[in-house]
Amino acid sequence: MSLIDLSKQVALGVDIGGTNTKFGIVNHRGEVLDKGNLRTDAYEKVEDFIDALYEQVHPLMEKHGTEKHFDGIGVGAPNANYYKGTIELAPNLPWKGVIPFAELMTAKFGLPCTVTNDANAAALGEMLFGAARGMKDFIMITLGTGVGSGIIANGNLIYGHDGFAGELGHTIVKPGGRKHWSTGSEGSLEAYASATGITITAKKMRAEFPESMLNQYPEDEINSKTVYECAMKEDPIAIEVFRYTGQKLGEALANFVMFSSPQAILLFGGVIKAGDFILKPAKLHMERNLLPIFRNKVKLVFSELDEADAAILGASALVWEK
Amino acid sequence: MSLIDLSKQVALGVDIGGTNTKFGIVNHRGEVLDKGNLRTDAYEKVEDFIDALYEQVHPLMEKHGTEKHFDGIGVGAPNANYYKGTIELAPNLPWKGVIPFAELMTAKFGLPCTVTNDANAAALGEMLFGAARGMKDFIMITLGTGVGSGIIANGNLIYGHDGFAGELGHTIVKPGGRKHWSTGSEGSLEAYASATGITITAKKMRAEFPESMLNQYPEDEINSKTVYECAMKEDPIAIEVFRYTGQKLGEALANFVMFSSPQAILLFGGVIKAGDFILKPAKLHMERNLLPIFRNKVKLVFSELDEADAAILGASALVWEK
Repeated sequence: MSLIDLSKQVALGVDIGGTNTKFGIVNHRGEVLDKGNLRTDAYEKVEDFIDALYEQVHPLMEKHGTEKHFDGIGVGAPNANYYKGTIELAPNLPWKGVIPFAELMTAKFGLPCTVTNDANAAALGEMLFGAARGMKDFIMITLGTGVGSGIIANGNLIYGHDGFAGELGHTIVKPGGRKHWSTGSEGSLEAYASATGITITAKKMRAEFPESMLNQYPEDEINSKTVYECAMKEDPIAIEVFRYTGQKLGEALANFVMFSSPQAILLFGGVIKAGDFILKPAKLHMERNLLPIFRNKVKLVFSELDEADAAILGASALVWEK
Repeated sequence: MSLIDLSKQVALGVDIGGTNTKFGIVNHRGEVLDKGNLRTDAYEKVEDFIDALYEQVHPLMEKHGTEKHFDGIGVGAPNANYYKGTIELAPNLPWKGVIPFAELMTAKFGLPCTVTNDANAAALGEMLFGAARGMKDFIMITLGTGVGSGIIANGNLIYGHDGFAGELGHTIVKPGGRKHWSTGSEGSLEAYASATGITITAKKMRAEFPESMLNQYPEDEINSKTVYECAMKEDPIAIEVFRYTGQKLGEALANFVMFSSPQAILLFGGVIKAGDFILKPAKLHMERNLLPIFRNKVKLVFSELDEADAAILGASALVWEK
């Protein structure tokens, strides 16, 4: 009987987005040994997509040959069901219906495959390789085009009875508030704290305040990046856009804390480039809405993972979580 | 080596409330073999309380003698910390500061002792003996003078990093809304959906509608019981009091579902006597605020445990959860 040599064990991490798919071969230390990408939207049939992925990955697996042992494949994808290994009715992917993705991957690669949604994968990545190392209770919030979340309680991801737990972006922070462009719900966190939400807030506020620097841009250039540029130049309206965003985020975070009492909340994604413009009001309004027993206990921190690799690391972490 | 005979194993369940403490000897089937109670508020010192409890319990333990084996003691109490075995700064108990309650109990009884808050204990009771038998993901909401909660995910109670998770009564359902009489927070679930909240709503509504039957009672008799009496007599204002309460509850439940995706939400406590007057609007507004993937999946049900014994059963369940 030989001992298991951890340094030889690797996983394939795959992150599937609406436009692009990234993949990487990752070791136990969270080092990405090799990586690549392909277009998701170039493949109408999921089987063709998996064939194309295999074409790219297989030479890399061959290259590592007997040097490394592949433990399995982890996949982060929208609407992925951890329990069933399926991707279900994902509006942003070209493959319609319920796709038995893990099964198809295993058939092609000959390796066990686990899927979950991208924010859950990101949370696992943070726990194994990032800012949440050693933590057993934390919440990961991804602030990008949308708002995603992954919740770790007592060292485990919360999947819920059907595998769909952790849709915190769709919790309501302002009943009867802003209508969501896609779900139709009124006043959800995503409607305010996503990049899309920030753009809406900015367009509304610059219309109200003609003196704002934000009015120097054409309509289609208003986004969280240009708001950030104006905030850096001390435009009070741009600063107010982020303050308001941070307030809504903070109010939502207080509710999350009173649910699972995490040690930390990790923020990740494009929106966090706004830094303290969002973080400070978020912290203020989180603390203000907490019961005293929860106050000044929860760390509110940014992700430590390199954004380019985070999704791959998170997906690969799925392999070792089990 | 002898086999363990489950039918002989029993636990002592203790439920500590601000005024009264109930206790019972419970077997693995959730049968209360013996029970009793004492005043909590009659003992200024916690040691005296524990001595008095022992005086009552010990004869019962002697009675079962060699017949039964006592596995341990489970205690449900306000502000109880599961990890530390303490009761901390409980505003409604006579004992101030941080009380090492489990340690004191073990010293007196010679049995291992576990503590948690009453709503967590109730959730465990439902999982072992009640409506949640066989469920691995559900949320228990207790609607009494206050609103408490216990959250089970993947078969385990969520305690959080500090043991205080599951304060869902204090999540904000209406930012800037009704000020809470004790915490000072604005728009918390407890401010609307507790018996106290219902009384406030009823007083406000009867002042606005002089024709309401609710105006036939003196001010100090307005409570969820009299509102129920008027609702049963088809007073539209009394019915509206419950509908509004149910709406706020339902909106909050939708947020909870998108957090942990439970199979069911169990409602327990005095307020549920209002039955469909609250349950129907709660269900309606929960479904309305859910993402489509969560709709028509979550059962919203009343507790099955006998209210007189539920707290004792829940506390005893702590012994066998470990």
